[in-house]
Amino acid sequence: MAYINENFLKLQHRYLFAEIAKRVAAYKAENPQADIIRLGIGDVTQPLAPAVVEAMHRAVDECANGETFRGYGPEHGYNFLIEAIIAHDFEPRGVHLTPDEVFISDGAKSDTGNIGDILSSANVIGVTDPVYPVYVDTNTMGGRDIRYIPCNEANGFTGDIPAEKLDVVYLCFPNNPTGAVITREGLQRWVDYALRNDCLILYDAAYEAFISDAAIPHSIYEIEGAKQCAIEFRSFSKTAGFTGVRCGYTIIPNELKVNSLSGERVALNGIWDRRQCSKFNGASYISQRGAEAVFSAEGQKQIRATIDYYMANARIIRQSLQGFGLQVFGGENAPYIWVRTPNGTDSWSFFDRLLREAQVVTTPGAGFGAAGEGYIRITAFGTHKSSIEAMDRVKKCL
Amino acid sequence: MAYINENFLKLQHRYLFAEIAKRVAAYKAENPQADIIRLGIGDVTQPLAPAVVEAMHRAVDECANGETFRGYGPEHGYNFLIEAIIAHDFEPRGVHLTPDEVFISDGAKSDTGNIGDILSSANVIGVTDPVYPVYVDTNTMGGRDIRYIPCNEANGFTGDIPAEKLDVVYLCFPNNPTGAVITREGLQRWVDYALRNDCLILYDAAYEAFISDAAIPHSIYEIEGAKQCAIEFRSFSKTAGFTGVRCGYTIIPNELKVNSLSGERVALNGIWDRRQCSKFNGASYISQRGAEAVFSAEGQKQIRATIDYYMANARIIRQSLQGFGLQVFGGENAPYIWVRTPNGTDSWSFFDRLLREAQVVTTPGAGFGAAGEGYIRITAFGTHKSSIEAMDRVKKCL
Repeated sequence: MAYINENFLKLQHRYLFAEIAKRVAAYKAENPQADIIRLGIGDVTQPLAPAVVEAMHRAVDECANGETFRGYGPEHGYNFLIEAIIAHDFEPRGVHLTPDEVFISDGAKSDTGNIGDILSSANVIGVTDPVYPVYVDTNTMGGRDIRYIPCNEANGFTGDIPAEKLDVVYLCFPNNPTGAVITREGLQRWVDYALRNDCLILYDAAYEAFISDAAIPHSIYEIEGAKQCAIEFRSFSKTAGFTGVRCGYTIIPNELKVNSLSGERVALNGIWDRRQCSKFNGASYISQRGAEAVFSAEGQKQIRATIDYYMANARIIRQSLQGFGLQVFGGENAPYIWVRTPNGTDSWSFFDRLLREAQVVTTPGAGFGAAGEGYIRITAFGTHKSSIEAMDRVKKCL
Repeated sequence: MAYINENFLKLQHRYLFAEIAKRVAAYKAENPQADIIRLGIGDVTQPLAPAVVEAMHRAVDECANGETFRGYGPEHGYNFLIEAIIAHDFEPRGVHLTPDEVFISDGAKSDTGNIGDILSSANVIGVTDPVYPVYVDTNTMGGRDIRYIPCNEANGFTGDIPAEKLDVVYLCFPNNPTGAVITREGLQRWVDYALRNDCLILYDAAYEAFISDAAIPHSIYEIEGAKQCAIEFRSFSKTAGFTGVRCGYTIIPNELKVNSLSGERVALNGIWDRRQCSKFNGASYISQRGAEAVFSAEGQKQIRATIDYYMANARIIRQSLQGFGLQVFGGENAPYIWVRTPNGTDSWSFFDRLLREAQVVTTPGAGFGAAGEGYIRITAFGTHKSSIEAMDRVKKCL
């Protein structure tokens, strides 16, 4: 008799964004004429950079010709992309990586979820609260106990170093959903905690491209000792508008080891390689060529312009909401603005009010965890026009 | 302290195709001038169909424009592709599916591996032997016991119905590696076994497009009762040369249920949807548009021509080897030819001999399991020229 993985039965019924979609659809059904502005789900709106578009056309043409056709690629990705990543994203920050430490994938969401495959179900997992739901849901599926590390105004939304010994901790900076960033000193405290307790840090740096403050680290490997305790996840989704194209990458340093029950230290790099070779077959060649073009001189200029465009939205949203007397966090080195609801309104009520009275879709903070109650998240990924219009409408319903 | 998933330590050290690559690289290092013909790994060689190329260019252009840009798509895939799949691959065979029963992914390999996520680690898994290594490796990673079902000449390489009650059985027809197909009656026996024992069949139909015999079923759902006991995996990799483009799909009928410990029957469709929403973010939009074009009138004609091209290779290989007095199986409704080694030579020795004396790369049958010992697999995915040349060379070293 076939049995289900029982852990799935412990999941909350509905994924946050599915619940939002349901409420928006219900409102839309009642109000078919409503002009809804979507600043909820963190999807981008600007087109792919011309350099990326050109590279993808070239890649398609290569596959149209028997002489240049590309079939199965390496499961861990093509060297042309891996080398571009190392040269542009890490070397300039003094982080030296070898090509076998970089694994190309179809996106950071897949990797932050799938990474659990190689870890014991007995590990106790720490997640910051509020948290990107994928960490919680995938570890619940994997049968792991989860501890929440509250992130609030008092600790700058970066979490206090836990008193207990956690086996694995997910960190995400710039943070989704709060838009908080962490200083070098703050991150060093997490690395020191990990080294002291033989804890593994899963560092989600999907939003690092939005950092403009030179004092803020982009990679956890800028921190002393991090290669012995951390995996880092990166994405082209927000950096270069690849939410539909699908490409990301994960760094697993060769020196990173965890424990086996027999007391040996096991290098995670080879284990993840084995996982990827058996349960993945490489990211699309066309997507990888597109990603490579992000690192060309033209590509860098073009994606920079798009990031600046979104960060101009972030400023509009931040300054508008502050002007309305709301308390606002994030949105300076991150594309998310974390907003205290007025007069202690709960998140879902404020979400509903903004939907019904302003036709603006946000994300209720409570959907990201208990510590998100009393906040909403607004994304800067809309257009200038929609961001300005949204703020005008929000003003009227406060 | 972070702990590894111990099951990874039980894996055989080296994945079959990595071992082959290593041996070929060693030979190539000793013989840099050698003109090696690769009929080992099942990668395709013919370019993408023009209809697919056009569709992918159009999709790239859509993403280059703010008005038509596509970001996150549905995790389970776009309806335009799902509807084309249902209309072309299932309806004409009398199989009625609803769109929510079809899940688009980045490939059948990912899905046949990841499907274990939703199943209990206590399930006992049956695999045919010889077997595509992914089923074994991913279930070993998932901590499941594996039973081997020998496939040999006596049972037409389709396996005898087991006497024991297995919880889950992987079947793959047309088979990789043996090229065997199963009749309606043969498949009905497996479905009856599954229904009788509440066993889940994981049916890998990645090679169904190579069936030319009208009596052979393409989908397990052509068999009475299969919707209550089977998941089916499909791929565009071999059908349309998508090994580098990455797109496949998985069918989970709404009526398919397995057990929970508390005795409830749980529908797998919603559970897999939840898995995909948390650990996957949809296949590339460009790949999905390419896949859609496979179903256009032009696309169908073009991929048919490529499949015919490969099947002409299969005929060349089959007939040549038979002419040399070798015993040959498969290669009639499948792109793989399964060859008995001469004089009881073991698989790896014959592999090495063909590599060193004929500079032809094959796959040793023993790499697919104990029952594969004494065979090699040859693929029909080369060019006509290389297939003919390979046979000339093999002849000389027999």
